[in-house]
Amino acid sequence: MVKSLEEIAAIVGGTVVGDADLEITGITNIEDAGPGEITFAVQPHLEKAATSNAAAVIVPETVTVFAKPIIRVNNPRIAFTKVLEVFTPQEMVPRGVHPTAVVGSDVFVGRNVAVMAYVVIADNVSIGDNTIIYPHVYLGEGVTIGADTIVYPNVSVYRHSEIGSKVIIQAGAVIGSDGFGFVTVAGKHHKVPHAGAVVIEDNVEIGANVTIDRGTTGYTRVMRGTKIDNLVHLAHNVIVGENCLLVAYTGISGSTTIGNNVTFAGQSGSVGHITIGDNCTFAGRAGVTGNVPANSFYAGFPARPHREWLKGEASQRKIPNLLKKVQELETRLAELEKNDRC
Amino acid sequence: MVKSLEEIAAIVGGTVVGDADLEITGITNIEDAGPGEITFAVQPHLEKAATSNAAAVIVPETVTVFAKPIIRVNNPRIAFTKVLEVFTPQEMVPRGVHPTAVVGSDVFVGRNVAVMAYVVIADNVSIGDNTIIYPHVYLGEGVTIGADTIVYPNVSVYRHSEIGSKVIIQAGAVIGSDGFGFVTVAGKHHKVPHAGAVVIEDNVEIGANVTIDRGTTGYTRVMRGTKIDNLVHLAHNVIVGENCLLVAYTGISGSTTIGNNVTFAGQSGSVGHITIGDNCTFAGRAGVTGNVPANSFYAGFPARPHREWLKGEASQRKIPNLLKKVQELETRLAELEKNDRC
Amino acid sequence: MVKSLEEIAAIVGGTVVGDADLEITGITNIEDAGPGEITFAVQPHLEKAATSNAAAVIVPETVTVFAKPIIRVNNPRIAFTKVLEVFTPQEMVPRGVHPTAVVGSDVFVGRNVAVMAYVVIADNVSIGDNTIIYPHVYLGEGVTIGADTIVYPNVSVYRHSEIGSKVIIQAGAVIGSDGFGFVTVAGKHHKVPHAGAVVIEDNVEIGANVTIDRGTTGYTRVMRGTKIDNLVHLAHNVIVGENCLLVAYTGISGSTTIGNNVTFAGQSGSVGHITIGDNCTFAGRAGVTGNVPANSFYAGFPARPHREWLKGEASQRKIPNLLKKVQELETRLAELEKNDRC
Repeated sequence: MVKSLEEIAAIVGGTVVGDADLEITGITNIEDAGPGEITFAVQPHLEKAATSNAAAVIVPETVTVFAKPIIRVNNPRIAFTKVLEVFTPQEMVPRGVHPTAVVGSDVFVGRNVAVMAYVVIADNVSIGDNTIIYPHVYLGEGVTIGADTIVYPNVSVYRHSEIGSKVIIQAGAVIGSDGFGFVTVAGKHHKVPHAGAVVIEDNVEIGANVTIDRGTTGYTRVMRGTKIDNLVHLAHNVIVGENCLLVAYTGISGSTTIGNNVTFAGQSGSVGHITIGDNCTFAGRAGVTGNVPANSFYAGFPARPHREWLKGEASQRKIPNLLKKVQELETRLAELEKNDRC
Repeated sequence: MVKSLEEIAAIVGGTVVGDADLEITGITNIEDAGPGEITFAVQPHLEKAATSNAAAVIVPETVTVFAKPIIRVNNPRIAFTKVLEVFTPQEMVPRGVHPTAVVGSDVFVGRNVAVMAYVVIADNVSIGDNTIIYPHVYLGEGVTIGADTIVYPNVSVYRHSEIGSKVIIQAGAVIGSDGFGFVTVAGKHHKVPHAGAVVIEDNVEIGANVTIDRGTTGYTRVMRGTKIDNLVHLAHNVIVGENCLLVAYTGISGSTTIGNNVTFAGQSGSVGHITIGDNCTFAGRAGVTGNVPANSFYAGFPARPHREWLKGEASQRKIPNLLKKVQELETRLAELEKNDRC
Repeated sequence: MVKSLEEIAAIVGGTVVGDADLEITGITNIEDAGPGEITFAVQPHLEKAATSNAAAVIVPETVTVFAKPIIRVNNPRIAFTKVLEVFTPQEMVPRGVHPTAVVGSDVFVGRNVAVMAYVVIADNVSIGDNTIIYPHVYLGEGVTIGADTIVYPNVSVYRHSEIGSKVIIQAGAVIGSDGFGFVTVAGKHHKVPHAGAVVIEDNVEIGANVTIDRGTTGYTRVMRGTKIDNLVHLAHNVIVGENCLLVAYTGISGSTTIGNNVTFAGQSGSVGHITIGDNCTFAGRAGVTGNVPANSFYAGFPARPHREWLKGEASQRKIPNLLKKVQELETRLAELEKNDRC
C-alpha cells in the first residue's frame, strides 16, 4: 500500500509541513522505521524521531520546525493508531466452510467466517463472526472462539480451550497441551491428569510455535491485550495479566501469576508458584526466582533490581584490578612489617 | 469428574478422617494442589501438605490427627497412583481409521485404534492396539508405534522412528528430523547425511513442539519412563536414560549420553559428546560443559556442584564491600608508611 | 548403505592403505564419527582423527602411515564431499501432485515435483523442478520455491515468502509469521502491520520448529548456504549473511544484520538493531548487546571478547581466596597500627 503524506494528513485531520506528495509505504515505531515509513513522536522522543530513518513523522501541533516532513495533529498517538488501521492489510480469504473441512456435531459457525481446507473441528465447537481459521488447524471438543479472530495454519487447540475475540494465533502454536505434572513414586513418574483448560482473552496475540499448557484443574489464562512472541512457553495454571509483552523464549513455570502491563524481554523466565506485580519489566535473560513487587525493573539471574544488577556487573569488572591492588598492598605491608621488626 | 472422599477411600481401601462427603475434583502433587484437589504425603512432607491448598490428603495409617480431611492407608504412594488412574479422563474418540486418512501399503493397524481425519501414514508403518493418532499427524516410512500410545495433532514423525507403548506425544512435536551436522570445506557447509533414526521407549511423554533429531548413523534414544516438557531439543545421537525429567527449553547437544533418573530444570542444557551419570540434577539455567559423575547436583554456567555455585554467588555479593574495605586498608597503610618514613 | 573402503577409494580416485574390504556404513565429521563411519582429516587434525572412533579416514597423499585404515587422495576435502553425496539417501517419494492436495489458481508446478497428501497451496504460488512438499504443508499466496528444495511435514509458509533452490525446511517450521511489533498508546499495544516478507536463499537449511518472522516492510533474509538448527527464532527484518551456522535456540531480535560465516552456538542470541561483522563466533549462551566487529570471538552475557570473558571467569574464582587474604591483611595492618601507636 502507498499513501501520500497529504492523504494521510486528511485521514487524521492534520496538516503537512514538507513534501505533501511524499509516498509512504509503511508505518511503525521510531526505532524500526526505515525509508518510506511514517512514525509518530511526542516529547521526549522528538529528537530521536528527527534523527531516525523514518520518512515522515506525526507530531503535536506545537511542533512547527522539524528535520523531516511532518504531519501536525492534536493527538499524535490517536492519529497514529488511525493510520495503523489504514495500513493493516485485510486478510483476503474466501469466506465459508471449505468442503474439505471435517466438522463435528453441534458446531456453531458465525457469519462471514472462513474455515479453510483440511481444518478439523471436533464436536460442540463455537466460532464467532468474521473469524478466519487457516488450513490444518485442529480445534478440539468444546473449543470456543470469539469474533474477528485469526488462527493461522497448523495450530492445535486442545479440548475446552476458550479463545476470545480479535485474537491472533500465529502458525504452529499449541494451546491446551497437558501440563508437565507428575508424581514420582519409587523413582517412576506417574502422570497427573490435566482436567483444566486454557482461556485466551480478547485482543491477545500468540506467536508462532508458542506452547500454552492447560490447567491441572482450573485454567491457564492470558488476559486481554497481552502480546506473546514466538516460542514462548506458559506452563499449567499460569495467569498472565492484561497488556503484558512476553518476548521470544520467555518461559513461565507452573502456577505463577503475572500482573498487568508486565514485560518479559527475550530469553527470560520465571520459576513457578510465585506472584509478579503490575507494571514490572524483566530485562533479557532475567530469571525470576521469587515474588516480585509491582513496578519493579529486574535483571540478571537470579533476577534482582536492575540498579543492583548494574552495580554487581560493574563491581565484577573491578576484580582484576582489585587482585593487583591487594597484592601490592601485601608487598607494602610486608615492607612495613620488616621495618617494624627492626 | 467429582468423587466424594468416601468414594475415594473405598477405591484405595482406606479410612476417612473428616468430612466424608467432601467433593474432590482433581488430584495432583502437594505444591500444585488447589481447592477441591487431593494429594498425598508421607514424612517429611506431612507438614507441607497440612499447610497446602489441598482439600484433602492421603496419609499413612500412623497419622491420626491432621489439619485437613485425610484418607489413611497402608501405602499412600500406591493409593495415590490408583486415584490418579480414576481421575485420568479416557480419551473419548471414535475408533477406526477415518475415511480421509491416507494410508500407505503394508501398514499394520492393531485393534481398537483411532486414526483420525487427515492423518497421513506412509508405507510399512505399524500401529499397536488402542493407540490414538490425532488429525494432521504424519507418520513416515517404516515408523512403528506400540500399543496404548497417543499422538496429538500436527505431530511429524520421520521415517523409521520407533515409538513404544503408553507413549504420549503432545501436539506439534517433531520426531526424527535431520541432525545439525555439516562438514565445512572452504567456508561452505556440506550436509552430513542422517541415515539413523529415533527410538522412543515405553511410557515416555514428549511435550508440545519438542524436536528430537535422528541419529547420523545409529539412534537418538529416549529410554522408558522419561518425561520431556514443551520446546525441549535433543540433537542427533543423544541418549537419555530411564525416568528422566527434561523441563521446558532443555537443549542437549549431539552424542551426549544421559543416565537414569536425571533431571534438567528449565532453560538448562548440555554440550555434546559428554556423559552424565545416573541420578544427576541440574538446576534451572544450568549449562553443562563436561562429563558429570553420577548423583551430582549442579548449577550455573559453566555448571558446577550446587554448593560451589552457591559459594560463588555469595562471594560475588561481597565484592562491593570488599572494594570499600581494600580502599580503607590502603588509606590506613599509607598513613603507617608516612609515620614509618618519619 | 554399505560401501567397502575399496569402493569408496574408486569413487574419489584414491588409494587404500589398510583393510580394503572394511565396510563403511556412514560418513561424518571427526568428532561425531563412530564405528563403521568414515571421516576426513588434514593437518592439524590428523592426530585427532587417528584417535577418533572413526573406522577409516580420508587423508592427504603425503600421509603414508596412520593408526587407522586410510584412503590417500590429492584433496581430502573435495574427496569427502563426493563421498557425502554417495551416502546421502535420495528421498524416494512418488512424484506428482497428490489428488488430495488443494491447489489455488495460477499455481506453477515444475517438472518432477512431489506435492504430497493434504498440502494446501494458495493462489499465485510457484514451485521449481524436483522440489518435494510433504503432507500438511501450507504455502500462502504468492509464495515462490526454487528447484531441488525439500519442505517437510506441517511447515507453514506465509504469503509472499521467497524460498530458493536446494533449500531444506524441517518439519514444523514457520516462515513469514507476523513480527512482534506494537505501538503502545495509553498502555494498550496496537499491532504494527507486517507488509514485508521473508527471503530464504539457495542452499539454506532450516531446522524443525524454527520461526522466522516477515519484515514490517521489506524483508527478513537468510542468505545462501546458511544452516539453521531447530527452535531458532529470527525476528522481523533480521538479515543473516552467507554460510552462517545458527545452533539450537539462537534468538535474533528485530532488524539486526549478521555478516557472512558467523556462528551462534546453542542458546545464544542478540538484541535488535545492531550489526555483527563477518566471521564472528559466539560461544554457547552468549548474549550480544551491541555492534560486533568482524572476526570476533565473543562469549558471556553481555557478550565480550572470549579472552576477556575467560579472564573474568578466572578472576571470579579467585574471590573466595581474595576475601580471606584481605581479612588477613587487615589483621596484620591492625597489629602494625597498634605497634605504631605505642
